[in-house]
Amino acid sequence: MSRIAYVNGRYIPHRQAAVHIEDRGYQFSDGVYEVIAIHKGTLVDEEGHMVRLDRSLNELEIAWPVAPQALGVILRQVVHRNRILNGIVYLQITRGVAPRNHAFPDHHDSALVVTARHMPSFDPGQAKRGVDVVTTPEIRWKRRDIKSVSLLPNCLGKEKAVRAGAYETWFVDDEGMVTEGTSSNAWIVTTDGKLKTRHTDNDILNGITRIAILKLASENGIDFVEQPFSVEEAKKAKEAFITSTTSFVKPVTRIDGDKVGGGKPGQLAAKLLDYYAGHLDSMPSPSGKMVR
Amino acid sequence: MSRIAYVNGRYIPHRQAAVHIEDRGYQFSDGVYEVIAIHKGTLVDEEGHMVRLDRSLNELEIAWPVAPQALGVILRQVVHRNRILNGIVYLQITRGVAPRNHAFPDHHDSALVVTARHMPSFDPGQAKRGVDVVTTPEIRWKRRDIKSVSLLPNCLGKEKAVRAGAYETWFVDDEGMVTEGTSSNAWIVTTDGKLKTRHTDNDILNGITRIAILKLASENGIDFVEQPFSVEEAKKAKEAFITSTTSFVKPVTRIDGDKVGGGKPGQLAAKLLDYYAGHLDSMPSPSGKMVR
Repeated sequence: MSRIAYVNGRYIPHRQAAVHIEDRGYQFSDGVYEVIAIHKGTLVDEEGHMVRLDRSLNELEIAWPVAPQALGVILRQVVHRNRILNGIVYLQITRGVAPRNHAFPDHHDSALVVTARHMPSFDPGQAKRGVDVVTTPEIRWKRRDIKSVSLLPNCLGKEKAVRAGAYETWFVDDEGMVTEGTSSNAWIVTTDGKLKTRHTDNDILNGITRIAILKLASENGIDFVEQPFSVEEAKKAKEAFITSTTSFVKPVTRIDGDKVGGGKPGQLAAKLLDYYAGHLDSMPSPSGKMVR
Repeated sequence: MSRIAYVNGRYIPHRQAAVHIEDRGYQFSDGVYEVIAIHKGTLVDEEGHMVRLDRSLNELEIAWPVAPQALGVILRQVVHRNRILNGIVYLQITRGVAPRNHAFPDHHDSALVVTARHMPSFDPGQAKRGVDVVTTPEIRWKRRDIKSVSLLPNCLGKEKAVRAGAYETWFVDDEGMVTEGTSSNAWIVTTDGKLKTRHTDNDILNGITRIAILKLASENGIDFVEQPFSVEEAKKAKEAFITSTTSFVKPVTRIDGDKVGGGKPGQLAAKLLDYYAGHLDSMPSPSGKMVR
């Protein structure tokens, strides 16, 4: 757990970290967030997260609470004050506090909350362990490209996975096509060996790990297509896996109880995780950036 | 504005009313709410709101934070302490505080926040003033029957109304049918004089004022059908209006700039508002219920 949290200008003990009851994040889920991995003290793909954050804020017309550069300093401060070497830093920005009224307030001071926590360090061995996913109808709103805190259906989806003894739940749209997981992107390796993940539009979030994996695939001559795939196609695929900031690349070996790829983690997922390990180690050392 | 708020067991000055940054309402919009009108010191249709609240909580498997009867006491305390004669009391219940993780926490202490504020008293003259509505594609999640705080798309919708100089925005589904407003139910009087409002399923919230109006229509021999209507049908209708806890019955005289009913408030809306005034005055006096 975060020991120190940043809340609207102050670094305070996590236990005391609070926001006003009329923060629009609390009453309307009128806010956005990012989760950034910390690897050996470094923020992973920080720029990608900042670009996406800027896009989410723009789409909702929420002002930056502080200058982007200042946010970078705050993120490092929270990582440093919590002594996180491997873990995540979480940031949430809302439209701030205003008397309850659906329409935007005339003026707003965006609220900013940042926390950080330890997580196990990157483990290349995870390529050898498959996880189960289950599926559920896509019931979320139609702007999943915005990383908003309007996550109630994602919570319901993840809870379904937990109850089924699975790791993740994939949402399936009206056409039977997988959109994405509750907190991850979905991938398969088709029967003819092609890497496949859904294209980005309003239906899914463009995962930062997704972007990194596509880049690594490109750089290493691995063919891929950005296209939707059905649950049936996924079940018959050579491999399936998920990507996210906290899962990196995780092989999927069962979908709704049916084995994928003979129930064994696939080779391409392992290869991509290996490339991703190299990507993590290529991050600039924190020494030059860390605020002390 | 509320001067005194109730937050998790304490009555505190509104300015200081806060919740933890890891309240799941703030990070996941994992909570529900109700807005109850106060008319001459009395909670309007309290039982209907409590029944709906119970349903929302059950659907999401969120525990009651206090016994229903105790919640009644708290609502009256907040109304009393804020000296509200006419206005609203707002209550929000979330799954409480837990380390951030999409799935439900193993155990949870639901969080409860209650505020109240003054509003102008019921004005029968509003039947003579029409409001404009605009329309927007339905982009919300598919469980609009749950009164969750996952209201970001409703905020975007209401903001659209404000920018168009309108009062409300109606969501329109993929079939071109009106679902409901961002914080109200939508009604028309068809060309053959029949009252029409969408049936209740997962697509809309069953408004407490909606229920009251249907009951009043029934009691007064007014024919109605619960069926979806299109934007085109609404534009050609004899009348259109909206209902909500804070709007009561409000005639709609323009939809996307086109006049409805010759641009004048309709007679049936006026009649229903009149019945509704009687309904308000039939509420039990607060003297027997008010906690002092």
